[in-house]
Amino acid sequence: MKRTLIAGLLAAVALPTAAHAGQAPSTDTLVDNVHGETIGADGQVEPVIGLLFDRSGVIRQVFHPGDKLPRKGFGYHVDGQGQVILPGLIDAHVHVMELGLAALTLDLSATRSLPEALDAIRAYAAAHPDRTWITGRGWNQEQWGLKDSRGQSRYPTAAELDSVVGDRPVWLERVDGHAGWANSAALKAAGITAATKAPDGGAIDRRPDGTPAGVLVDAAMGLLTPRLPAPRAADRDAALAKAQSLLFQRGVTAVADMGTSIEDWQAYRRAGDKNQLYVRIMAYAMGIDQMALIAGGEPTPWLYADRLRMGGVKLFMDGALGSRGAWLKAPYADAPGTRGLPRMTDTQLGNLMSRAAMDNFQVAVHAIGDAANAAVLASIDDLSATYKGDRRWRVEHAQIVDPADIARFGRNGVIASMQPVHETSDRVMAEARLGPQRLAGAYAWASIAKAGARLAFGSDAPVEAPDPFAGIAAAISRQGPDGQPDGGWQPQEKVTPAQALAAYTTGGAYAGFAEGRFGRLAPGLRADFILVDTDPLTATPDAIRHTRVRETWVGGGKVWPADAENPPADKNGNQKG
Amino acid sequence: MKRTLIAGLLAAVALPTAAHAGQAPSTDTLVDNVHGETIGADGQVEPVIGLLFDRSGVIRQVFHPGDKLPRKGFGYHVDGQGQVILPGLIDAHVHVMELGLAALTLDLSATRSLPEALDAIRAYAAAHPDRTWITGRGWNQEQWGLKDSRGQSRYPTAAELDSVVGDRPVWLERVDGHAGWANSAALKAAGITAATKAPDGGAIDRRPDGTPAGVLVDAAMGLLTPRLPAPRAADRDAALAKAQSLLFQRGVTAVADMGTSIEDWQAYRRAGDKNQLYVRIMAYAMGIDQMALIAGGEPTPWLYADRLRMGGVKLFMDGALGSRGAWLKAPYADAPGTRGLPRMTDTQLGNLMSRAAMDNFQVAVHAIGDAANAAVLASIDDLSATYKGDRRWRVEHAQIVDPADIARFGRNGVIASMQPVHETSDRVMAEARLGPQRLAGAYAWASIAKAGARLAFGSDAPVEAPDPFAGIAAAISRQGPDGQPDGGWQPQEKVTPAQALAAYTTGGAYAGFAEGRFGRLAPGLRADFILVDTDPLTATPDAIRHTRVRETWVGGGKVWPADAENPPADKNGNQKG
Repeated sequence: MKRTLIAGLLAAVALPTAAHAGQAPSTDTLVDNVHGETIGADGQVEPVIGLLFDRSGVIRQVFHPGDKLPRKGFGYHVDGQGQVILPGLIDAHVHVMELGLAALTLDLSATRSLPEALDAIRAYAAAHPDRTWITGRGWNQEQWGLKDSRGQSRYPTAAELDSVVGDRPVWLERVDGHAGWANSAALKAAGITAATKAPDGGAIDRRPDGTPAGVLVDAAMGLLTPRLPAPRAADRDAALAKAQSLLFQRGVTAVADMGTSIEDWQAYRRAGDKNQLYVRIMAYAMGIDQMALIAGGEPTPWLYADRLRMGGVKLFMDGALGSRGAWLKAPYADAPGTRGLPRMTDTQLGNLMSRAAMDNFQVAVHAIGDAANAAVLASIDDLSATYKGDRRWRVEHAQIVDPADIARFGRNGVIASMQPVHETSDRVMAEARLGPQRLAGAYAWASIAKAGARLAFGSDAPVEAPDPFAGIAAAISRQGPDGQPDGGWQPQEKVTPAQALAAYTTGGAYAGFAEGRFGRLAPGLRADFILVDTDPLTATPDAIRHTRVRETWVGGGKVWPADAENPPADKNGNQKG
Repeated sequence: MKRTLIAGLLAAVALPTAAHAGQAPSTDTLVDNVHGETIGADGQVEPVIGLLFDRSGVIRQVFHPGDKLPRKGFGYHVDGQGQVILPGLIDAHVHVMELGLAALTLDLSATRSLPEALDAIRAYAAAHPDRTWITGRGWNQEQWGLKDSRGQSRYPTAAELDSVVGDRPVWLERVDGHAGWANSAALKAAGITAATKAPDGGAIDRRPDGTPAGVLVDAAMGLLTPRLPAPRAADRDAALAKAQSLLFQRGVTAVADMGTSIEDWQAYRRAGDKNQLYVRIMAYAMGIDQMALIAGGEPTPWLYADRLRMGGVKLFMDGALGSRGAWLKAPYADAPGTRGLPRMTDTQLGNLMSRAAMDNFQVAVHAIGDAANAAVLASIDDLSATYKGDRRWRVEHAQIVDPADIARFGRNGVIASMQPVHETSDRVMAEARLGPQRLAGAYAWASIAKAGARLAFGSDAPVEAPDPFAGIAAAISRQGPDGQPDGGWQPQEKVTPAQALAAYTTGGAYAGFAEGRFGRLAPGLRADFILVDTDPLTATPDAIRHTRVRETWVGGGKVWPADAENPPADKNGNQKG
């Protein structure tokens, strides 16, 4: 984007510089030559052709088609060059720190041979002399064509790793997460020797003499992983910076952090204290104890100009579908001996929810299986009689719901915090786990919305990429990036483009009690907006998925790209060329 | 104090109100009709007759005798009514949270009979329905004249406590801390029955049938105290408010918090986030792990307009003299079989100090005994070769120093953080523990200062009252409140009034890397000052001890009394009528 100063105001204007990245210009700013839309307070789509915001980063005026744009009264000008303007997108379910930490480890997924991988490992270790362990993921010996002397596929070895990193332990997970490759220092740190037996469900790759060769498979990974060092404060600080960059690249300006630990919180505060917290984080504590430790007897105020608040707690009613930890009403179709397990009793759930609610914390409960969803809805019914007022009980995932329970989402002001991409990623697995009879209530966005629940969409990053455009595309098509299945999976649960945009903007803000602060382009709200090349309300799912985010602004400050003239080439980003 | 508005500016001036306690007026403020002094940047005493500070609470001008005071250019006026002005005092060694928590429990020390105590207990329990345990201290059955049927002195009983509080456990420590009085619910919570044996060094008061009667003595207290609930966040918030009030009442505007836990830190931040943190807290983390958790990879910035910073870590080299935990070079005079114990090896100390110093944290090490002080000084010598620059290694207490080691305090920029009142409280005990030969290096303020160490004085509250005037009186007289001993104990170690004032102002600021922010009355520094009725540089020790603090101001905002027209009658305060 090209930005021009209004003549004559030059002397009075302090321009954003590299030292002030993310800060609003010290004058009123006009954004024009854009077309796009916001969801209004009434839930309707409102076309937008320009914005005026003040030096505190608050929107003063929004211009609609037919409005006359001002020619003076502002000191800074952003020419949108005809791009699409949207409110900054909100990802209602992210694990901020895990997203950043995962992105900072060594990624071997692009390596095509063992020598190439070894080069990458050596270079990474040399670039990170302060790390006591080198960790990473993504290798695939099949992709490398790795063979033993008899021409059989083989695993890489500790000795091969030792040849590039001998001074520190190294631990690299296979692309599917079902095996890990250790060097000798890592095996030694874990005490794994010829005498070590593999646990049930695991295997230790061995040399002919029985000594461990380097790779640990499945349950045997657990012999080593407890030895991995916890992230240090500096790692967390770097991870937060990385996570912010990844979010901004895809137009996300605010997130709900679903399971904030004290260590996470301290990293957010350190960034805030140094004016390096740009993304807006609505934090939900990882359990009651962390909630009380972090926030004390009530939710924190909004901190750092609405960039951080702990307003609630995250609880878990069950596990995940893939590992059959989700709690179902009837047995798994592909494992008739089990229907999963609740992580706690109904009484325990009620007690924890009550403990949070009595101090006015919001409650967000992870519920994947239909039994878990029913239990959480029942608990909300119970508690709503005691804890009245605007509680906004959140069900996280609400993935598999008994159709008979869907109407219950319309009661008590429940928020359904759902992740559209999970549907496209998991549908084959979900069909296997559930069988054909239970699919009607699976990822049932449209039905749950129709029942009256408020939708808030998110990614569950780093489980999926933090990409709301992929989410919108999935939400309106119920098709994966490959366009499959034709016509969409359980297509009756598609939502409209406007519903999807709302779930990624006003829905996410409402879900975090932030609707008076951000989530819309409207006077009095924070100037969080993005400029993109594709209008999600009119484009095809495929075009939406390939949306190019040109600029991301938070609170009137441009946070991405860091330098418009020199967009950073970040290999971990999703930016299309 | 009477305050007058400059005529004509009325409309423009926002006065401090109850809702804005502790905030600077929204205009420049002149303080005049005062006489007093500050320690200058050069360490010399500078007389002061007035101050001008701006709306951000920063001093613009300091007026000295002979200066003409301005008649305009300010919007708010504080008439000091001829009182003595001093910089806000700095207590360089406080346990902020413990001070507040102790002050919030039930205080029975003024009760004159068992019925009076029972009334107080009943009333306190009724006033605190949310507390799961009722705790307190200060009872004395001798003072109550409590007798059994044969006229013998007896302890109070659980049954007597049950008669006023039966719904919750109650635990009340005796005035000397050597016994505790439990009700039946507390005994039950601790599982103490007729079958419970008293541990070595302890006793359980019993009924004729062998069941516990209610009082546990010495080591037997340990059967119950682990059951006491940890303070909740709300308790800590209340404790911080209470601690601030106690500090302000005695003219303390800044403290070093010597051993900050994450729970403490979160309470400080909650107060800061709500604009309820008024006192300046220089926090030293309780050990390396808390340091890394709270501050991360480097000291925090100064937060909340210089009211909070974590700049260092607190470590412990030994214990205390009274319990013979202090580590001495030669055996205790009154226990020749022991010379105390170090809490860690020299190597461990060096490693921990190094771990902190490499991330630029300041190190403060508790050292009471002469062996502990020697070990810490040796470690500082070692580390100073590696960690160069302005490190300000702190020795906390520096209580008993081998005269041969005193000169070592003059090297490496060491700060001696000492507590004058410990000398007057402990001298009889110290003589018993040390014998006559080792007193020359005991509480040796003057010698340590002469060696070149920077003195920073404090109270160790709640071990002693957080009262710098008591400290100054002790420092210049080496006499207790009773004027004993005549001429002062080891009188060669008295300091001058100016040295004492410096150690409670500029010394405390320097010890916390805050000398550019507060600690003096000087342009550019925070307007932290107090108005008192006694000049510590000219008054007798007895008069200094009875100093009446008229007003306490932090950052240009009056923080005490809350309402000048209605000074609060706080029974826990030290304010003299």
